[in-house]
Amino acid sequence: MIVVMKPDATAAETAAVISKAKRMGASSHPIYGSDHTVVALVGDMTQVERSVFDAMAGVLKTVRIQEPYKLAGRTSHPHNTVIDVNGIKIGGNDIVVMAGPCSVESRDQILEVAHMVKEAGATILRGGAFKPRTSPYSFQGLGEKGLQYLAEAREQTGLPIITEVMTVETVQMVSEYADILQIGARNMQNYGLLQAVGKVQRPVMLKRGISGEIKELLMCAEYILSNGNYNVMLCERGIRTYETATRNTFDLNAIPVLHRASHLPVVADPSHGTGDWELIPAMSKAAVAAGADALILEVHQSPDNALSDGDQSLKPERFAELMADLRRIAAAVDRNIATLPTDRAEAVNGLMKETV
Amino acid sequence: MIVVMKPDATAAETAAVISKAKRMGASSHPIYGSDHTVVALVGDMTQVERSVFDAMAGVLKTVRIQEPYKLAGRTSHPHNTVIDVNGIKIGGNDIVVMAGPCSVESRDQILEVAHMVKEAGATILRGGAFKPRTSPYSFQGLGEKGLQYLAEAREQTGLPIITEVMTVETVQMVSEYADILQIGARNMQNYGLLQAVGKVQRPVMLKRGISGEIKELLMCAEYILSNGNYNVMLCERGIRTYETATRNTFDLNAIPVLHRASHLPVVADPSHGTGDWELIPAMSKAAVAAGADALILEVHQSPDNALSDGDQSLKPERFAELMADLRRIAAAVDRNIATLPTDRAEAVNGLMKETV
Amino acid sequence: MIVVMKPDATAAETAAVISKAKRMGASSHPIYGSDHTVVALVGDMTQVERSVFDAMAGVLKTVRIQEPYKLAGRTSHPHNTVIDVNGIKIGGNDIVVMAGPCSVESRDQILEVAHMVKEAGATILRGGAFKPRTSPYSFQGLGEKGLQYLAEAREQTGLPIITEVMTVETVQMVSEYADILQIGARNMQNYGLLQAVGKVQRPVMLKRGISGEIKELLMCAEYILSNGNYNVMLCERGIRTYETATRNTFDLNAIPVLHRASHLPVVADPSHGTGDWELIPAMSKAAVAAGADALILEVHQSPDNALSDGDQSLKPERFAELMADLRRIAAAVDRNIATLPTDRAEAVNGLMKETV
Amino acid sequence: MIVVMKPDATAAETAAVISKAKRMGASSHPIYGSDHTVVALVGDMTQVERSVFDAMAGVLKTVRIQEPYKLAGRTSHPHNTVIDVNGIKIGGNDIVVMAGPCSVESRDQILEVAHMVKEAGATILRGGAFKPRTSPYSFQGLGEKGLQYLAEAREQTGLPIITEVMTVETVQMVSEYADILQIGARNMQNYGLLQAVGKVQRPVMLKRGISGEIKELLMCAEYILSNGNYNVMLCERGIRTYETATRNTFDLNAIPVLHRASHLPVVADPSHGTGDWELIPAMSKAAVAAGADALILEVHQSPDNALSDGDQSLKPERFAELMADLRRIAAAVDRNIATLPTDRAEAVNGLMKETV
Repeated sequence: MIVVMKPDATAAETAAVISKAKRMGASSHPIYGSDHTVVALVGDMTQVERSVFDAMAGVLKTVRIQEPYKLAGRTSHPHNTVIDVNGIKIGGNDIVVMAGPCSVESRDQILEVAHMVKEAGATILRGGAFKPRTSPYSFQGLGEKGLQYLAEAREQTGLPIITEVMTVETVQMVSEYADILQIGARNMQNYGLLQAVGKVQRPVMLKRGISGEIKELLMCAEYILSNGNYNVMLCERGIRTYETATRNTFDLNAIPVLHRASHLPVVADPSHGTGDWELIPAMSKAAVAAGADALILEVHQSPDNALSDGDQSLKPERFAELMADLRRIAAAVDRNIATLPTDRAEAVNGLMKETV
Repeated sequence: MIVVMKPDATAAETAAVISKAKRMGASSHPIYGSDHTVVALVGDMTQVERSVFDAMAGVLKTVRIQEPYKLAGRTSHPHNTVIDVNGIKIGGNDIVVMAGPCSVESRDQILEVAHMVKEAGATILRGGAFKPRTSPYSFQGLGEKGLQYLAEAREQTGLPIITEVMTVETVQMVSEYADILQIGARNMQNYGLLQAVGKVQRPVMLKRGISGEIKELLMCAEYILSNGNYNVMLCERGIRTYETATRNTFDLNAIPVLHRASHLPVVADPSHGTGDWELIPAMSKAAVAAGADALILEVHQSPDNALSDGDQSLKPERFAELMADLRRIAAAVDRNIATLPTDRAEAVNGLMKETV
Repeated sequence: MIVVMKPDATAAETAAVISKAKRMGASSHPIYGSDHTVVALVGDMTQVERSVFDAMAGVLKTVRIQEPYKLAGRTSHPHNTVIDVNGIKIGGNDIVVMAGPCSVESRDQILEVAHMVKEAGATILRGGAFKPRTSPYSFQGLGEKGLQYLAEAREQTGLPIITEVMTVETVQMVSEYADILQIGARNMQNYGLLQAVGKVQRPVMLKRGISGEIKELLMCAEYILSNGNYNVMLCERGIRTYETATRNTFDLNAIPVLHRASHLPVVADPSHGTGDWELIPAMSKAAVAAGADALILEVHQSPDNALSDGDQSLKPERFAELMADLRRIAAAVDRNIATLPTDRAEAVNGLMKETV
Repeated sequence: MIVVMKPDATAAETAAVISKAKRMGASSHPIYGSDHTVVALVGDMTQVERSVFDAMAGVLKTVRIQEPYKLAGRTSHPHNTVIDVNGIKIGGNDIVVMAGPCSVESRDQILEVAHMVKEAGATILRGGAFKPRTSPYSFQGLGEKGLQYLAEAREQTGLPIITEVMTVETVQMVSEYADILQIGARNMQNYGLLQAVGKVQRPVMLKRGISGEIKELLMCAEYILSNGNYNVMLCERGIRTYETATRNTFDLNAIPVLHRASHLPVVADPSHGTGDWELIPAMSKAAVAAGADALILEVHQSPDNALSDGDQSLKPERFAELMADLRRIAAAVDRNIATLPTDRAEAVNGLMKETV
């Protein structure tokens, strides 16, 4: 950590900084410049907050040198983490496509769309049973009933399921149904929830908050990792900027930046990222070209009648076209779109024929 | 609600919009412009989401006319809400100053600072027992022990206490100690938590999220109000923008905008708003001039040694000077800085003399 | 245009709106909702400012329906504009790569790098002779001498040149040397300059300002088009957001959004967009996948010693690798990377052999 | 300047940094931390760009310690600059109110409003003759004719005038009429224009760009100062953020931040800052409470019929009320609202009686 003193800081104020650093186990290297004295602190300062020094008299500012995320960072963990979800690997060479409706609306709806997205090549099924809604008067999801329908869809199709968990109390219940727990953007810094999903053995997809900095996202992952759950993937889903031509600004730069800073897999969510189904194909292709390890896409058999997010959902036929395009882009960056393990795909197809 | 059709929308697509609106109980008024057909929907559309129409074929966009917050909005509730906290009124003509440390660090610390801020004229004591921290390795607060110390400080000083509640599980416990429940910026859209505090009978101070839109803040208040708790105050605490000269951009414009849109009291938090104690006096005065009903300020007897937020905490002597300045600004806008009810101030002073 | 009245607007206030609209040649369709009266104005309102009605008593807000950019918009000009720059077509099926250093630093430097980028497959040479610099003490460019070196590089390589013009006074001079005039991000709304380049017959590449809205960018293009110059291309180069992990947030969403709204070609600038050479390959590939018609990239033979922007410049060998990758992505979206017209490429190669 | 090396940087790469610094006249102090080597450079680095080191192999990032604005900064110029405009002092203890219409629309309009704002207590008259407009089809100002009307208004009222200059070519002409040259937000980084106004002897009010960082604003002031014009005032006029409840986010924090960083006077523009006349009174009072040295306000005798910005203009009677309120706030911070020099006020009143 670097502590920059004010131009008019006294020697005693600089000495106080050095003395405090010593108490924290760091050695100090003061450098006397023309305008400012700068004190470089050497030692493990990753867990020391900057405000500890910023609050001292005579201090202008501090600059952190070491990144504060020990477990999420690439420095101490150089190799990519690959997460195995029922035999589907996220973070390896194959790009995983997760697809399904925003909300589970009924048994028929989720079963139908599950078969459709599987047919088009998705390998993980998404669908919300607990929905964080801006208005208290909006549809809030089917709750556990929705989870049961998702489980039934998994049984029929063989697709693992990802679904959101919103509260500490429901972590246990959702974990019994879901293959991947999703932490939504609004809950990125809901630390109680992060700690709770850190204690279960289910992979977690952590979404970047709508104004989450990349370093904050990594610190939130650190909350989960430091509680013992190492299967965390990071999801870019659009940030809030001044631009209103798109609902959010889908920040693809986050993909290479996260890959450089962290070993965790990176998922891109073009549906929420853009909020506009017409933009999804272009931005999905761009996400793959930029290096995403997985995509999560909203697909609904009838967006006009969706209970939520119809305007950012693809129809199944458009999704199938997009999958074909994505295979070409993946090949152009020497990757593949992941497929279901062969035996499961077949066995389940048999099952599907019987039940649908 | 206004539905704007695309220039190439077909008559059938417009008819589908009209038909869907009819099913929702709204009458439609199509207007045929040179480039676009526009359909004005008349009826109560406050609880209808825009995506219901945005997702339809041929629709370019929708524009909401009615505000979706029925309970928080001023339209249906023109008179200011005044919240009574142990005899101190928030939202009336007097401006309430809440002050105290970021975190409760020890019994001695909170008792000492409580007397100091009371002496300077604060009428509510702030202090965090549960702390949402960016790093999992940082001090997370004293928990229930911290609440007990706060209660002891209240007993000694007569100052009601405001403290943050972070999880649904602790709402009941925190409510037993606190006079005002604080929902922090990171939890503005933690809907489970909002519903939980909506069901207890304690005033709630809801902080604007770091990228919360004003209309979102009002929708979050709506979550609390619609669960039966009408004693909600709104708190501006700085938003995230591109500017890095200040930690956040303390958005004072929110004060008159919230007063225009809502009947709920508005609190300003210059400590988090600026993140820099040197800026707090100027911005506190500005907040009062802009119409804030209350201020919440971080005061610490030794910011250099604070366990959190030392850099944005005022020393007690600076706080006392600021209080004098605020009284002058309040007078210049025909308001007063609130004082403790006389009998309590006296009785407690007697108590204080004995115990401190 | 839609005019929304306040809930307490009087009939006289609504009548005043209707009367003003009539004077402007628009017919009015008032709709009486439960809370608000809404007046829909039918007629050509594209050149009427919203403040004309927003300022009226009783008006809550106005909503524009027609887009105000007549010439830049796709509504009245559905087919893509293709700009011919010395035989190289921008906006057609082939994707054009413009490359070269941030600044022209010397004759040797620009000639050397021109041959290098041509060798790697670029078809247009970039280089700044007039440099907008944040500090008045920084290198400000070689001026006309730099333009002469660029012209010499064009003569040797056959590559057309793009260079920035910063002031009205130099438009004529720069036009004599350049094949494409670049308007920089800081000058997006320098209307005098836009009018000046609208009056010369040189293609213009207009960069989005660092906080330019997409609709503002199109209105700035409208300034150029309405002065008679129809050869305008739009350039996304990164916007300013709260995120500091990247210098700017390169907004690839702008590519499909601009293609939907406008017929003008869209150029992507990953060098400024990211400000970080390590991110350029990923984001260049993403830009092509998202539909960019051209890329503009900073390439320098020795970024360590560049007089400006060394940190966002590619070395020639990295640029050559990227070109190979881009050809694969282009093919995956059924496009090609543009090449120089065969005869010119050959003739110039002959010339090159003699002069270098 | 601090240069932070990557964890895997080689000794040779660090040596190259030290060697380059030496060539620039700086001594180097390398500090070897657990993860990173850090090189502190001592010497005058204010005019060295960070990219000079950022571009080097093995460098992670650089941190600037000295501020790059020598002339605008307070470090080397601790006392406040006070600018004298025809006897009215800006930057001293008195707060100057500049008022008038957005645009000069006609001789009668500007003369009438000039008398009105003088009557209410303004001491400087604002009015635009050259208008930067978002649309090429909007009213662009009366040009030199407008300047002549302004001069006539000055003659009648004794109020000095401030008006915008948009292009280098018109700097000379506008300087012949105006007492203060205004550089608009869109031109904050129009460096040619900054250099041009740096060479004339007229005070300049430099507006912060809509996404201008405070340090950029100071660097733009540096462009003017370094060309020899020391009479520069800085104007906060609202920044672009994600919030759409206000047209801009009027950033009052800039006032104390600028006062801390710079000796130049700070002007606040609540009209553009908020874009909404209903918010102007609250935010004007807040600006004075926050320490603004001057306010600039749009006043129009008939906002409903203004040719521009009617929605953010105060009527003269509201402006007069606001002036009364501002005097009270100014007194509460031990300042006064400036008044015209007595003799001029009288003499001119005599003149006024004859001519109006």
